[in-house]
Amino acid sequence: MKNIDRIIEIALQEDIGSGDITTDAVVDENLGGKGIAVAKENLVVAGVDVAERVFRLLNPGIEFKAYHQDGEDISSGERIFAVAGDLRTLLTGERVALNFLQHLSGVATQVRSFLNLIDDNRIRLVDTRKTTPGLRVLEKYAVRMGGACNHRMGLYDGVLIKDNHIAVSGGIKAAVEKARERVSHLVKIEVEVTTLSEVREALDAGADVIMLDNMDAAMIRECVSTIGGRAPVEVSGTVTREKLKSLAECGVDIISSGALTHSARSVDISMTISLLE
Amino acid sequence: MKNIDRIIEIALQEDIGSGDITTDAVVDENLGGKGIAVAKENLVVAGVDVAERVFRLLNPGIEFKAYHQDGEDISSGERIFAVAGDLRTLLTGERVALNFLQHLSGVATQVRSFLNLIDDNRIRLVDTRKTTPGLRVLEKYAVRMGGACNHRMGLYDGVLIKDNHIAVSGGIKAAVEKARERVSHLVKIEVEVTTLSEVREALDAGADVIMLDNMDAAMIRECVSTIGGRAPVEVSGTVTREKLKSLAECGVDIISSGALTHSARSVDISMTISLLE
Amino acid sequence: MKNIDRIIEIALQEDIGSGDITTDAVVDENLGGKGIAVAKENLVVAGVDVAERVFRLLNPGIEFKAYHQDGEDISSGERIFAVAGDLRTLLTGERVALNFLQHLSGVATQVRSFLNLIDDNRIRLVDTRKTTPGLRVLEKYAVRMGGACNHRMGLYDGVLIKDNHIAVSGGIKAAVEKARERVSHLVKIEVEVTTLSEVREALDAGADVIMLDNMDAAMIRECVSTIGGRAPVEVSGTVTREKLKSLAECGVDIISSGALTHSARSVDISMTISLLE
Amino acid sequence: MKNIDRIIEIALQEDIGSGDITTDAVVDENLGGKGIAVAKENLVVAGVDVAERVFRLLNPGIEFKAYHQDGEDISSGERIFAVAGDLRTLLTGERVALNFLQHLSGVATQVRSFLNLIDDNRIRLVDTRKTTPGLRVLEKYAVRMGGACNHRMGLYDGVLIKDNHIAVSGGIKAAVEKARERVSHLVKIEVEVTTLSEVREALDAGADVIMLDNMDAAMIRECVSTIGGRAPVEVSGTVTREKLKSLAECGVDIISSGALTHSARSVDISMTISLLE
Amino acid sequence: MKNIDRIIEIALQEDIGSGDITTDAVVDENLGGKGIAVAKENLVVAGVDVAERVFRLLNPGIEFKAYHQDGEDISSGERIFAVAGDLRTLLTGERVALNFLQHLSGVATQVRSFLNLIDDNRIRLVDTRKTTPGLRVLEKYAVRMGGACNHRMGLYDGVLIKDNHIAVSGGIKAAVEKARERVSHLVKIEVEVTTLSEVREALDAGADVIMLDNMDAAMIRECVSTIGGRAPVEVSGTVTREKLKSLAECGVDIISSGALTHSARSVDISMTISLLE
Amino acid sequence: MKNIDRIIEIALQEDIGSGDITTDAVVDENLGGKGIAVAKENLVVAGVDVAERVFRLLNPGIEFKAYHQDGEDISSGERIFAVAGDLRTLLTGERVALNFLQHLSGVATQVRSFLNLIDDNRIRLVDTRKTTPGLRVLEKYAVRMGGACNHRMGLYDGVLIKDNHIAVSGGIKAAVEKARERVSHLVKIEVEVTTLSEVREALDAGADVIMLDNMDAAMIRECVSTIGGRAPVEVSGTVTREKLKSLAECGVDIISSGALTHSARSVDISMTISLLE
Repeated sequence: MKNIDRIIEIALQEDIGSGDITTDAVVDENLGGKGIAVAKENLVVAGVDVAERVFRLLNPGIEFKAYHQDGEDISSGERIFAVAGDLRTLLTGERVALNFLQHLSGVATQVRSFLNLIDDNRIRLVDTRKTTPGLRVLEKYAVRMGGACNHRMGLYDGVLIKDNHIAVSGGIKAAVEKARERVSHLVKIEVEVTTLSEVREALDAGADVIMLDNMDAAMIRECVSTIGGRAPVEVSGTVTREKLKSLAECGVDIISSGALTHSARSVDISMTISLLE
Repeated sequence: MKNIDRIIEIALQEDIGSGDITTDAVVDENLGGKGIAVAKENLVVAGVDVAERVFRLLNPGIEFKAYHQDGEDISSGERIFAVAGDLRTLLTGERVALNFLQHLSGVATQVRSFLNLIDDNRIRLVDTRKTTPGLRVLEKYAVRMGGACNHRMGLYDGVLIKDNHIAVSGGIKAAVEKARERVSHLVKIEVEVTTLSEVREALDAGADVIMLDNMDAAMIRECVSTIGGRAPVEVSGTVTREKLKSLAECGVDIISSGALTHSARSVDISMTISLLE
Repeated sequence: MKNIDRIIEIALQEDIGSGDITTDAVVDENLGGKGIAVAKENLVVAGVDVAERVFRLLNPGIEFKAYHQDGEDISSGERIFAVAGDLRTLLTGERVALNFLQHLSGVATQVRSFLNLIDDNRIRLVDTRKTTPGLRVLEKYAVRMGGACNHRMGLYDGVLIKDNHIAVSGGIKAAVEKARERVSHLVKIEVEVTTLSEVREALDAGADVIMLDNMDAAMIRECVSTIGGRAPVEVSGTVTREKLKSLAECGVDIISSGALTHSARSVDISMTISLLE
Repeated sequence: MKNIDRIIEIALQEDIGSGDITTDAVVDENLGGKGIAVAKENLVVAGVDVAERVFRLLNPGIEFKAYHQDGEDISSGERIFAVAGDLRTLLTGERVALNFLQHLSGVATQVRSFLNLIDDNRIRLVDTRKTTPGLRVLEKYAVRMGGACNHRMGLYDGVLIKDNHIAVSGGIKAAVEKARERVSHLVKIEVEVTTLSEVREALDAGADVIMLDNMDAAMIRECVSTIGGRAPVEVSGTVTREKLKSLAECGVDIISSGALTHSARSVDISMTISLLE
Repeated sequence: MKNIDRIIEIALQEDIGSGDITTDAVVDENLGGKGIAVAKENLVVAGVDVAERVFRLLNPGIEFKAYHQDGEDISSGERIFAVAGDLRTLLTGERVALNFLQHLSGVATQVRSFLNLIDDNRIRLVDTRKTTPGLRVLEKYAVRMGGACNHRMGLYDGVLIKDNHIAVSGGIKAAVEKARERVSHLVKIEVEVTTLSEVREALDAGADVIMLDNMDAAMIRECVSTIGGRAPVEVSGTVTREKLKSLAECGVDIISSGALTHSARSVDISMTISLLE
Repeated sequence: MKNIDRIIEIALQEDIGSGDITTDAVVDENLGGKGIAVAKENLVVAGVDVAERVFRLLNPGIEFKAYHQDGEDISSGERIFAVAGDLRTLLTGERVALNFLQHLSGVATQVRSFLNLIDDNRIRLVDTRKTTPGLRVLEKYAVRMGGACNHRMGLYDGVLIKDNHIAVSGGIKAAVEKARERVSHLVKIEVEVTTLSEVREALDAGADVIMLDNMDAAMIRECVSTIGGRAPVEVSGTVTREKLKSLAECGVDIISSGALTHSARSVDISMTISLLE
């Protein structure tokens, strides 16, 4: 939770700064309050623990009750969580808690809808490194809550030799060999290819995974057939909602989509706060 | 730039972690390279300086040339910036630089399209505090680059007495008085109202700005008429693209929209990297 | 409390460094102790919570009892707080706790004495940005505890167009217009003026507040009369104890004084620590 | 300079926060400016390098010229430094730079005046740990610039066994022995005493330095005579300007005064900023 | 270099604290100096860039010349680097620079001697997570400079199912399946086994790598034969200098040793500093 | 504990990074577990509190029971501590806890064995500044737990005028005088000498302690005789296990050895983790 605390503290700091001047002026100290967060549309929830943590970092004495676990489908109108305790804390923390919850639930909801379109559990839907700066760990968590899988977390936990690498390093074979020599024996090597001859080069070089970049369905099918099960196949490149079904029918093992994280809209969640008698 | 450096460093840290194992393995040290970022769709650019800063924080010796300033309209296919220097730095920094640039340009592009729909420069379009955690300052900057204005930056630089505050503090009049007493004489007091009688209470209390929350067009017109210029009027509450034009015709002074920041999709920008001979 | 924790941690770190070698050598581990802080002169107390926090950051198990709330007048000889728990913690934290408490109470005491000299509750006495580096939030808090009000917290939450700004930006009118365009609609614009013609310019430009800088009483009266209630009037500039009463009689609304924070002397408070049987 | 950078960054952060909204609105980008800092009263300057560092941390391209070195006497009206470069940087950094310079010069000026009252260079005037939280290193530096010496920097670089320690550790002899056993052989042991019999105990225990706490002149003379040169003698305890001369004539080696740092008022320094053609 | 800067800054901070009181007292400001670091025994050097960085973080103006690259064998008496510039910086930074260089070269030297004992380049010698707290990235770098390879960097970039995991998770098969489901498709799964039947379980479960923990040579040979090339084989568990050769002859692919990092002694390197005329 | 928390957090961060992917995949949430740490060789334990803190920083709810205090001799096979609570926490924290404990106990064990060789309690065995970067405070603590004493903690709490200082500052006399003038009256001045004439210079200059650097036994005896008790004598310079006894018989007061910290090997400690029913 340490990593997540840091981003929450940054979010609180940027919102509160030198103080919540409205609440501090308008609401007396030491009153008790209660807040209820309610879904205003159908959604897959993610980030309930983060919302809790927002309030707790402001005030460790806050009580929090979750009505749903991350990953659950929630209908419009349902309660998501209740929070009780120091009234000023509730008012001051509300927006940051909702900003996290609405954003992460937005990602999980988008992921779930993509999975429903694919509708084939032999295919692994994965995210990319196209995440919002600062929120990588949380957005990748939301992807899992939506039901999909993670690609590598960053540049440090997987080798992906992309077109730019190939262009400057003397070709696929040399690149794969250098990587094999240098990286830990627990890390796999994936190669991004754009042509059939690159597919063959990658196979010959012993790539552990082949990524087909920005190909049409016919080309993908040809590549899959050439690969013939010798390595898992990932397709990538502006994977839209429209293309998902057809991609899924090309015989690939993995579909990766940056849109899961970089273009999910926030879902609507509101919070009502009242005085505790 | 200090504040921005921190979020850039977090973004670099979360992506690079213990090292870019692909680039370090595959690309020799001390080679020179060049990268060109190109728009893959029409967009309003924002974040060029941030992209530059990403590369410079990795390597102060990087050279950077911007072809466009933030706030400019760019057509699909146009170059946005060129970056030259240590090849490994370019490959390692590419994704983080683009993640910022695509996200911020996405916000600016969305803002510009909202402004075009309003098409009335007497009306101030403003953002909200519904920003992505950690990116408040940058997203609010992108809003300005898109051509709109900022609402308060956070809880510290403006008083906005909302429904939850009113409910727990003994009504609008008491709340405005307490705020007036407590806050700096340079800070204005805005009151969120949902009924005509609350409008009158807020005016009587001497609110500096009145926010009409989630009202339909008829109701808004009635409130505007009641207020009669005694205070600027802001409308708020799920301001969609569809409702923008009609809201703009209600006579209000300010329209605020959370969607400007929390639901803008990333725009498509790519970067090609080559060896410098 | 997060912001305040940071400055407390810095203060503890700079005092304790690699360890309190006296206490660690001389006092056995795991003994219990009790400390009583006593005023050695008449004072207005501020910073009791900060003193408590100093001990708690060293050792969360410390018990703390306040005999007075911040803002209260305390006579020489009265107890301010008692603290009990791990003896080493008391000895190690004593000086830092007192350094905060003596400094902040010094500010509050100075503020109270200024207010007594003004003796007119229609006039708002406010601080400035001339605060001790690192202690802005705490010193502004002590000002409020002394009974005065805060000016803006920093450069971010209020517009104050000063002589240096006017000199380099094409005059008062242009400056006010640019500010109005650029800043949030919740932020007021104050203009610092030194002549009667500047007063008129500022009024014409629609300044929300007028600051009269370094004028004598006659000049101030003339300006107040010219302004005629169209904007609140602040006087500023080496506001000494001697000039306070006469300034207060000039008809101004606000008096600001840097001396409240930058030249308050520490008040005398001592702490006696004994072994708990 | 690293330690000092941190406190400067905190000071800039607390003043600038999310942005200098006045300067950013009113002053165009990329203009050049020049600022001159001038003493408005006679003073001993300290902190010129800190002022320079404030501007450089905002903008490494700033040029800075010092007219005086720290520790010099400066007359009212003399220039202290000039700074040139990006105009916005000058306006934004001015207050923080002056806050440091006025505070540290205030300390140095106070120290110099104390030394002049003592007027005996066989006596070492030293500071205490009663410094402003966060500014320990800088204030102790200003003390040296004023011409006095430093006592220990903190709890980590010298043993001072005070009344509270003696009361809880079984007496002076036991305390000195435990300290001798535990601390580095490069650290001296000082004992605070309040009676003649404690003086003897401290001498018998082999204290390296004896501190006479809050004694009157007659008592001090008696203690000095008893000690007879066997250990250096320090006097301490509300050392006021009035008592300085008489204390200096008691034959002590060291006079320590908390007022040097905790109750020095800021000296008056102003800065004029103009457009560079 | 950012990650490494942080640990260097911590090392400088813990050594310098509130100041290098010897150098600051004894050596005048603004003198130039030169330092030469010399090997006092035969060694494999690692950390030359780190030593350079130590001086540069203290003073960016320092000039540094390396006579050897990391990974080279250096004989006793040879120069390793020269550093020139501000004399105080050289004296203040010397110890921290050498502490890094001696420690990392100690690791590299130990690694090289292990490799010489194995004397079989088909076998990959790798490190473990038994590194000195805070120095993981640097020690793993020194291992590579010594000529060996890295195991995973931490808990985040490789799956290693150890005895403790198996004991609490329902056996090898279940553990491998859960891991396969959950982790990125670029991460391999290694299983630690202690018996032949566990070897078979791990193979059946599809483990990517098998780790034989703490077995004798006969048992290792039997396991290698059972595995029959279906997965790479790693041996681990108190791999001493004495056992290395016999382990290397058992047919394993990978030998891992914690002693490479946790028990390497510092090598002897000294630095002579002189005044630059 | 604040200083130590920071290095523990760095150690946890470098090991866990974006997550313990093995434990998170393989072990269900919310299970309880128990871990027992056992010595696998005879050792002097140091760092039990640090190990406890590692688990508590991951999860404040962990229960911890120490079977031995730091500084105790422990035989192979004895339990050192037990830890119980959230099973995932135990598995994730195990390696970092042991890395600290094995390293610090390694230092304490080495120290104890040196003391046994010296076998003369009139001689003070002390460490140096040759510590592992980042671990200074902890290693110096382990030295005390082993039974030896600390030299100065860093450059800030003792003056040690070394050969490099003397060479660039005009000789021993000038250096000692400058130091006396500049540093606090609680700090002693030690001078490193290499010849008999330097010994005399140092005595004449009033050095508080004399360090004999890298001399043979005969030379040391001659120096000790020359000094004749006028100052404590420290010997230093590649103090090996073999030379210890003969050095101890030369009549010196203090023996310092870098090997205590920079070349102690880790001792063997293992931990078994099981499911709590």
